Amino acid sequence: MTEPRRDPWLLTPGPLTTSRAVKEVMLHDWGSRDAEFIKLNARVRERLVELAGGQGTHVCVPLQGSGTFIVEAMIGTLVPRSGKLAVLINGSYGTRMVRMCEYLGRDRVVLETPEDTPVDPAALDAALAADAAITHVVVVHCETTSGVLNPVEEIAAVTGRRGRRLLVDAMSAFGALPLDAAATSYDALVASSNKCLEGVPGIGFAIIRRSALEGARGNASSLSLDLYDQWVAMEKTRQWRFTPPTHVLAALDQALAEHAAEGGVAGRGARYANNCRILVEGLRALGFETLLPDALQAPIIVTVRMPADPKFNFESFYDRLSRRGFVIYPGKLTVADSFRIGCIGRLGENEMRGVLRAIGEILAETGVGSCASARR
Amino acid sequence: MTEPRRDPWLLTPGPLTTSRAVKEVMLHDWGSRDAEFIKLNARVRERLVELAGGQGTHVCVPLQGSGTFIVEAMIGTLVPRSGKLAVLINGSYGTRMVRMCEYLGRDRVVLETPEDTPVDPAALDAALAADAAITHVVVVHCETTSGVLNPVEEIAAVTGRRGRRLLVDAMSAFGALPLDAAATSYDALVASSNKCLEGVPGIGFAIIRRSALEGARGNASSLSLDLYDQWVAMEKTRQWRFTPPTHVLAALDQALAEHAAEGGVAGRGARYANNCRILVEGLRALGFETLLPDALQAPIIVTVRMPADPKFNFESFYDRLSRRGFVIYPGKLTVADSFRIGCIGRLGENEMRGVLRAIGEILAETGVGSCASARR
Repeated sequence: MTEPRRDPWLLTPGPLTTSRAVKEVMLHDWGSRDAEFIKLNARVRERLVELAGGQGTHVCVPLQGSGTFIVEAMIGTLVPRSGKLAVLINGSYGTRMVRMCEYLGRDRVVLETPEDTPVDPAALDAALAADAAITHVVVVHCETTSGVLNPVEEIAAVTGRRGRRLLVDAMSAFGALPLDAAATSYDALVASSNKCLEGVPGIGFAIIRRSALEGARGNASSLSLDLYDQWVAMEKTRQWRFTPPTHVLAALDQALAEHAAEGGVAGRGARYANNCRILVEGLRALGFETLLPDALQAPIIVTVRMPADPKFNFESFYDRLSRRGFVIYPGKLTVADSFRIGCIGRLGENEMRGVLRAIGEILAETGVGSCASARR
Repeated sequence: MTEPRRDPWLLTPGPLTTSRAVKEVMLHDWGSRDAEFIKLNARVRERLVELAGGQGTHVCVPLQGSGTFIVEAMIGTLVPRSGKLAVLINGSYGTRMVRMCEYLGRDRVVLETPEDTPVDPAALDAALAADAAITHVVVVHCETTSGVLNPVEEIAAVTGRRGRRLLVDAMSAFGALPLDAAATSYDALVASSNKCLEGVPGIGFAIIRRSALEGARGNASSLSLDLYDQWVAMEKTRQWRFTPPTHVLAALDQALAEHAAEGGVAGRGARYANNCRILVEGLRALGFETLLPDALQAPIIVTVRMPADPKFNFESFYDRLSRRGFVIYPGKLTVADSFRIGCIGRLGENEMRGVLRAIGEILAETGVGSCASARR
C-alpha cells in the first residue's frame, strides 16, 4: 500500500482526528445484509444504550447522515404534528432547530439567552407554566457555537416537574460529558459517530425511551428520517432499512472499543478536560481572551476573542497554523469576532502544547504585540 | 498495521467490493471546512456532472445518506407541493417512491407493470394525455428488484413531448449504463457513491437541471433533505451545509479516478456486461433459470428462479457460498421465489468463474439433481 501522508491535527468541532485503528477497519468491505455486519450493528446499538445508561428503558436507533439529520429526525418523529416544542437557544444549533420546525410545520416557542450565557431553567419553568400547549422541550447539551455547557440536568428537572417531555441534542458532548438516562429523564437524546466517540462522520443515533417511540408511529413527514419506521424495521430484521454506511459503522464499532479501553465517559472526559485546561491556560498566557468563564466552558471547544492588534490577520494565522499541521476553526458568534480551537478527538497533551508553541511562533514572526480583544 | 483479513466477494446490489486504493484513501482525516477538502469536493461534483453529460445545463448536489435519502430529497425538492407525480413501477424501488409521496404529501398516480416487464411508455403517454394535473414523471433506470432495464430514453421522449418534467432514479445504473443529459432530457437524476462508481456507501447525489433547481425554493418539507438549500449554500461557501462523511467523499474521489482510468462509462459497462454474460451462461449451464430474457437483463444483477428440488435449501446454499468467499443476495420478487447474484463492484471474469465453480461444487455436495424452477 501507499505510504500515508502525515495528516494535520484537527482542532475543530468535527470531523476530528481519529485513531489509526479506527481508520484501518475501513480497509474492509461488508455486505450490509450479511451475518457478520448484522452482529456488528447489534453490538454498536447495545453499547450506545449502555453508554447512555438507558438499559431497559431506552433503545438506540441509528440513522445515516450528519448530526443535523438525526436532530431533525428526532423532532419530526417524536413531536406529534399537533405538538408544540419549546426550543432553548444560545447558539446556532438551537437556531437551526427552529428552522427545522418551520420545515416540519411544528409549532414552537423560542427561549433565547446570549451565546455566552447558559440557557435558563427558570425562564423555561415560567414558559411551561404559562403555555399548556407546549408538549416538548429541546436543549443542546454543549453549544459548540461558543463551547458553553448548558444545565441539562436542571432543564430535565423543570421539564419533568411540569409534565412535559425532553429532547436533548448531545452531539458534541455524548461520550465525554456524563448524562445518565436513569438520573436525567429524557425521551430522546441524539449524537453522532464523529464527535467525542472519535469515529468517522456519516452516522447519527438517537437514544429513545421505548414507550415514547412506540407512540410515535405516523408522526414523521419523511420516510428517510422516520425513526419509528427505522426502529421497527431494525427490530424485525436486525438490518438497516436502507443501505447503511458500512465502513463508517465498522469504524464506530472500533471507536467504541477504544472508548471503553480509555475508561468510558470518565476516561474520555478526563483527557478532554486536561486538553481544555492546557489550551485555555496557554492561550491566556499568550495574552488571548477566551469568551467563557471557566465554570461555563465545556471541555469540547474553546472560543477565543479576536485580537485587536491590526497585525493579527486571522486568514494568515489560520494558514500558518495549518502549514505547521494544526487545523483550527473560524468563529460563529454573532456577538463578537472570534475563532475556535477544539480539544476533542485523538489529541492529548502533546498536541495541545504543540499548537500553543506554534501559535507563539506565529505571533512572534508576524509581529503581533498584544492579543487583547477590542471589547474594552 | 494489522494484517487485513481476506474479505468475501460481494455479489450484491451494494454495498459492493471496492478496490484496495479506494479504501486506502480513508486512512486519512480531513477537516470538512479546510482548503484541501473543499478542492476535493469541487472535483467530485464537477466529475459527476461531466459523467452525466450535463456540463452547462445541470449541477451536482451531493447529500449525506443512502440512495433512498437522495431519491426522497429529489422528489421533495423538485415536485412542488401543488404538483403531481406519475410513478412508473416495476419493483420495490418504484413502490418505495409512492411511500415517499405519502410521507411528503405529494399527489401521485401509479403506472405499474409486473416485475419482469419494463415500464410502459405507451401507458405513460395515455396517462399524461388523460391527466393534465401530472407535472412530473419518475422512473427507475435499472430496477434491482429483478435486474430489469427500463426504457428511460423512451420515457424521457414521451414525458418531454407531453411537456412534463422527468426525474430518474439511476441508482444502480449510473456510471455503467450510458444516459447522456444532452440527449435524454431530464430535470434530475440521482445515484449514489456505492454502486457502479465503486465507492463506499454514505453519499447520494443529484444531477439537476439548473433552471429547475432555481425554481425549487421552498418546496422541501425537510431541512436535511432540501437540495435547493444544500445547493445554494454549497455554491456560496463551496462547503457542505452540515458535516459531510469526509472519508466516504474522499473514497468517491478515488473511485471516480479509477472509473476514468477504466475508460469511463464504456469501460465500466463493458466489464459488467462481460461479468453478466459469464454469470448468466454459467448459471444456465448448471440448469438454473434466470428470470429475465437477455434483452431485458441489465448487466447489474441477475435474478435466478429458486430450484424446485427439495434438496436445494437457500439458507444452506447461501452459507456454503459465503464460507467459500462469495456473498450473494436474497430475492425480493413478489411474483416468484428467487435469489440474486450481482455482477457489479470490483469483480471480473475470475470472480464470476469462481462463484460458478463454487455453486457447482455446492450442488454436487448437497445432491441437488436439477435446478429447474417450479413454475411449470
